Order: sequence, then C-alpha cells, then structure tokens
Amino acid sequence: MEHQQIKQAIEAADKAITEEDFEALMEFYAGDATLVIKPGLIAKGKDQIRKAFNAIAEHFGHNLVVKQGEMQVIHGADTALVIMETILETIDPAGVPSRITRRATYVFREESDGKWRCVVDNSYGTDLLGVA
Amino acid sequence: MEHQQIKQAIEAADKAITEEDFEALMEFYAGDATLVIKPGLIAKGKDQIRKAFNAIAEHFGHNLVVKQGEMQVIHGADTALVIMETILETIDPAGVPSRITRRATYVFREESDGKWRCVVDNSYGTDLLGVA
Repeated sequence: MEHQQIKQAIEAADKAITEEDFEALMEFYAGDATLVIKPGLIAKGKDQIRKAFNAIAEHFGHNLVVKQGEMQVIHGADTALVIMETILETIDPAGVPSRITRRATYVFREESDGKWRCVVDNSYGTDLLGVA
Repeated sequence: MEHQQIKQAIEAADKAITEEDFEALMEFYAGDATLVIKPGLIAKGKDQIRKAFNAIAEHFGHNLVVKQGEMQVIHGADTALVIMETILETIDPAGVPSRITRRATYVFREESDGKWRCVVDNSYGTDLLGVA
C-alpha cells in the first residue's frame, strides 16, 4: 500500500522534473528535505531545492527526461528507504543522445497528513563513497 | 554533532556484533526498526533482529569481526541517510580468513530522548537491485 503510494510519488516527481514543473515537484519533498545535487553539494529545504532543479534543467540544456527502473522499498518505523534505478536521458546541443543510469537512494517519511514525502534525495546512492 | 553521535552509535553496534553482545546491540535500533538480513529477507522489531543476529553469528562460526570504512551522512528532516563501507572479517572452519566489503545504507531517526537510532539497516546498499 505505502509501496504503491511511494512509487506513484516518485513517478510524479520524475514527470515534473521532465516537464520542468518545479512547483508540482515541490509536493514530493518534505519542507525540511535534503537533495544531494552532486557529491559534496546539497540543497536543504524547498527554496534551495527549487533553485537546484532550475540549475539542473539549465545544465542539461532543458532536455532532461527522467525514468524509473527497478525499485525496492524497505520500511522501518515511520520511514522508508527506497533503492531505485533512475535513468537520465539527455540530448546534447549537437543532438547526440545519452543515457545515464544511477542506483539512487531516497528516504521517505510518512507525514501528519498521511502522505509519504521525500526527506533525503540522494540519486548517487552508495557511489558517494570515494568521491565526495 | 549528530554525525559524531551516529558514527559512535555505528562503532558501538559493530563492536557489539563482534563481541556477540546482542543486548547491547539492541540499543542501536529503534523499537520498530527493520534489518535486511539478506536480499529478500527482513527482520522487523527487536525480537526478530536479535534472533537474526544469533543466526548470523552461527552462520559465520562465531568468528565475525565488523569494521567501519568511509562514512557519509546526509541529514534530512529528523532523519539521516548514512552511506558507509562495512568490512566483515571472518575465519572459516579450516582457518582461512576472508574479508567482505559492503557499501551499506542505514536510515537513522532522532528519537524523543534525543538519541539517534537506526530504523533501517540495509548493509547491502544498492546491491539489492537485480538480486532480491
């Protein structure tokens, strides 16, 4: 049940990133969530996260499509650890497509309105080790 | 500050596993924590987790030493995602030592007594994908 809700939340978030609808994207995050922008650089809270996604969209030349691969959810207390394949498809200015697959980790928390929201978004997963 | 507290908690837990002091180990976990025993098999709550560690100790012939490698902590809301190298050293019945390195993921939560406790212990990290 929660798995389904979390899966739908991630799908909606990835769709919002692809469509650059960052207002809709903010519904995905808890107010005090943290996003790992890249190893060693984080955004904390919705204002910083929104700005980060604007910069990410710019970085990818407004050509980023985010898709989901395999997902596993491990519930513990009122939180859930999500381990997930995230696929980033881009097209560079010369028209050359590329495809990046990451093994992401998210932490979700059930909030007081019964919705599961993301409190830690680390798309780099364990690849942070040895880098940042 | 919290980083230090979480680091000490993990060190104390690994020491307790090595010494097979599973009562001390239970202090590491929230009451409703989840442990990934192996891909596809979880223990929920302290009773199941304690039994799992008894079985793990047996499995490794009471010769398991757990050490910590590099650690990274990402705080979000009242939770923290920990990405960490965990090193398992064992000696098999023939006396042959082996060393397993995992890139583990833990979720911690700050509890009402101000202590950070583990709510999800997944020592397999993103390697769960494609396995379980």
